[in-house]
Amino acid sequence: MEKYSEMSREQLLALKKELDQQYADIKAQGLALDMSRGKPGTDQLDLSMGMMQVLADGAELKCETGVDCRNYGVIDGIPEAKRLLGEISEVDPEHIIIYGNSSLNVMFDSIARSMTHGVMGNTPWSKLDKVKFLCPVPGYDRHFKITEFFGIEMINVPMTPEGPDMDMVEKLVSEDPAIKGIWCVPKYSNPQGYTYSARTVQRFANLKPAAPDFRIYWDNAYSVHHLYDEDQDFLLEILTECAKAGNPDIVYKFTSTSKISFPGSGIAAVAASKANLEDFRKYMQIQTIGHDKLNQLRHVRFFKNLEGVHEHMRKHANIIRPKFELVLDILNKELGGLGIGQWTTPKGGYFISFDSMKGCAKNIVAKAKEAGVVMTGAGATYPYGKDPEDSNIRIAPTFPSMEELEKAAYVFVVCVKLASVEKLLGE
Amino acid sequence: MEKYSEMSREQLLALKKELDQQYADIKAQGLALDMSRGKPGTDQLDLSMGMMQVLADGAELKCETGVDCRNYGVIDGIPEAKRLLGEISEVDPEHIIIYGNSSLNVMFDSIARSMTHGVMGNTPWSKLDKVKFLCPVPGYDRHFKITEFFGIEMINVPMTPEGPDMDMVEKLVSEDPAIKGIWCVPKYSNPQGYTYSARTVQRFANLKPAAPDFRIYWDNAYSVHHLYDEDQDFLLEILTECAKAGNPDIVYKFTSTSKISFPGSGIAAVAASKANLEDFRKYMQIQTIGHDKLNQLRHVRFFKNLEGVHEHMRKHANIIRPKFELVLDILNKELGGLGIGQWTTPKGGYFISFDSMKGCAKNIVAKAKEAGVVMTGAGATYPYGKDPEDSNIRIAPTFPSMEELEKAAYVFVVCVKLASVEKLLGE
Repeated sequence: MEKYSEMSREQLLALKKELDQQYADIKAQGLALDMSRGKPGTDQLDLSMGMMQVLADGAELKCETGVDCRNYGVIDGIPEAKRLLGEISEVDPEHIIIYGNSSLNVMFDSIARSMTHGVMGNTPWSKLDKVKFLCPVPGYDRHFKITEFFGIEMINVPMTPEGPDMDMVEKLVSEDPAIKGIWCVPKYSNPQGYTYSARTVQRFANLKPAAPDFRIYWDNAYSVHHLYDEDQDFLLEILTECAKAGNPDIVYKFTSTSKISFPGSGIAAVAASKANLEDFRKYMQIQTIGHDKLNQLRHVRFFKNLEGVHEHMRKHANIIRPKFELVLDILNKELGGLGIGQWTTPKGGYFISFDSMKGCAKNIVAKAKEAGVVMTGAGATYPYGKDPEDSNIRIAPTFPSMEELEKAAYVFVVCVKLASVEKLLGE
Repeated sequence: MEKYSEMSREQLLALKKELDQQYADIKAQGLALDMSRGKPGTDQLDLSMGMMQVLADGAELKCETGVDCRNYGVIDGIPEAKRLLGEISEVDPEHIIIYGNSSLNVMFDSIARSMTHGVMGNTPWSKLDKVKFLCPVPGYDRHFKITEFFGIEMINVPMTPEGPDMDMVEKLVSEDPAIKGIWCVPKYSNPQGYTYSARTVQRFANLKPAAPDFRIYWDNAYSVHHLYDEDQDFLLEILTECAKAGNPDIVYKFTSTSKISFPGSGIAAVAASKANLEDFRKYMQIQTIGHDKLNQLRHVRFFKNLEGVHEHMRKHANIIRPKFELVLDILNKELGGLGIGQWTTPKGGYFISFDSMKGCAKNIVAKAKEAGVVMTGAGATYPYGKDPEDSNIRIAPTFPSMEELEKAAYVFVVCVKLASVEKLLGE
């Protein structure tokens, strides 16, 4: 294939004519497709239908300590749920608190608590002139929305295939006491699918923050979400590394079963040092009468243990792996060698990250939308929705059917080509 | 019966000797009973076991708009859940947002949001020198814990059988812009079981607060929790009254199914003006990926409609009415005419409120504890745990079995008598 940047103006104009026609043909189809959110498909949800059954038909509804899960009590999770989520999180159950249906909600509440009450006895952030967070970019839009909502200044840190630029992280964190946290999706990151290297995790564990209340927000959303059985990324366990480094309190590790069982009807957990968990519990016991223990029991009864989870995740992988491969095939075939885009090839998680030529992402997403294909908004992967290069686009291949996905991916590549030609022609 | 206050010292000493013996006998039994929390009994929980079944066996899991309740989406509740909780709350579904499993959590979050972001565009409370709440007393301990947690100054307002002292409420609210809210349990109040009169509700609706961001926290926790079919309290619907009074935004009305279906596995709702709900939604869409829609569906499928709820609540009443009557009988028989205590006779809710002679409540609760009967801590029904008269004790009769309850109530009356005699003897 010839690189677009090496084409003459005449060649580009001819190409544009051809692409305009393709785009017009697509629009005429009146498509309505969605590659915007990391939503499991219906067939993935069907995998967990046994959850509807495990508490039916007169099942015992007491947890292993004899507490009736239907009644009040047990604020921080039934023991068997702590054990299951502990296994998923690779930490001891005593370092686990079980929450409700949304780990995002736990992250939000952690920031809210830090604003009003401070972290482990430190000054509440709402009393400080300035609070800042480091944001590896591209990253997860809903993380950035939380920090923006609380008026926290966000500083972009470039991502690499090894994780965030740790030279920059170490320098900023050690120099500026206003920096109180960093958002991390350390495994199969959103949107690139990168997994932090062992060296990166160790450097995180050994940070020397200027702020005593600095915390790493370690959102391990995709810890068991592999696409391949034989070729998986490995992530060093951060709590262990932090303890070794004499930094036991520096990290909050979040997880949930949203993309294991049911989005919206899963259970979430935090893994952290006992001192941090004490801080969480103080808030929890005022905030709530406790979380849904029947749903905790439902998860434990259905998955049983970590092996049950892995077995279940293999079924998810069998459904979504072909979707990732389909999109990657189309990107390779249609865009390979053209020099108008780069993309990641993740081994797990929910996303493919695409980088267009500078200044093209918004145009591509707008064109796709006009042709009936909804993508995540351009810029969404950056704080304040501002991608300085207007280049990154998140592709979420899981929700559409294979047939829909093929169409959507085709629309996408046509839009990429067209927007690139327009850019090169200076339009 | 002779009043204790009219007894001679000799009579009191003789009585004390007798009571000491009774108390020693009780302690020798090694009881372990609990009348402390408003927990449904196991037989009450059994009433909702159909909930375990309604989503099993291949049930349809889409809500009426066709959304798959297993997946992400629908941040503020599925339509049929809004309708059901709307019926329970006596407001249109468009004035309802459905939350997770704990209305207390929604109240907490409402205060947290007001602290960090303010109410409908007003200054965040964390930026103000002083924020105050009115607290009708005796009241619900967990309300007071929330306001205490956020450093909000609490002002006691005496309760009457008609509701809070409205002269005091009107005066304080109209004069002091630092007063931002009032905690209300308007029907079968916690702990007295009082229901606010129509006049009280109308005076609430017509408040003229000095603070534009003053809100009535109307925790309608016991709206359908009657003990008797034929003799029920009636509460005027506050949103309607506020709208009529030109005060549509002054109230947040909370409800939940915690004591209808399962404590901890119920669903909660807020009813409020559209402007208030917009304020709630702005926060929600950053805070969470949405609440558990399967549990919403579970409730709708099981209860179907308001008539289904009422039918279900009659079954609850059949279980707990004898418990209330048993305790009231023992109080009447054992303490009637002695002049050492007064108590309420509620027609619904979860509690009986007992007022001892001044300065006796702590001693009574301590004595009961020593004899193996856990009561709600004396003082818990007041802000900061401080009952200025050391007199109020909350009795929660629902959780123990009839047999346990009879024992516990007997222990309680002996402790009341003994503490009263000690008081009169100046011990």
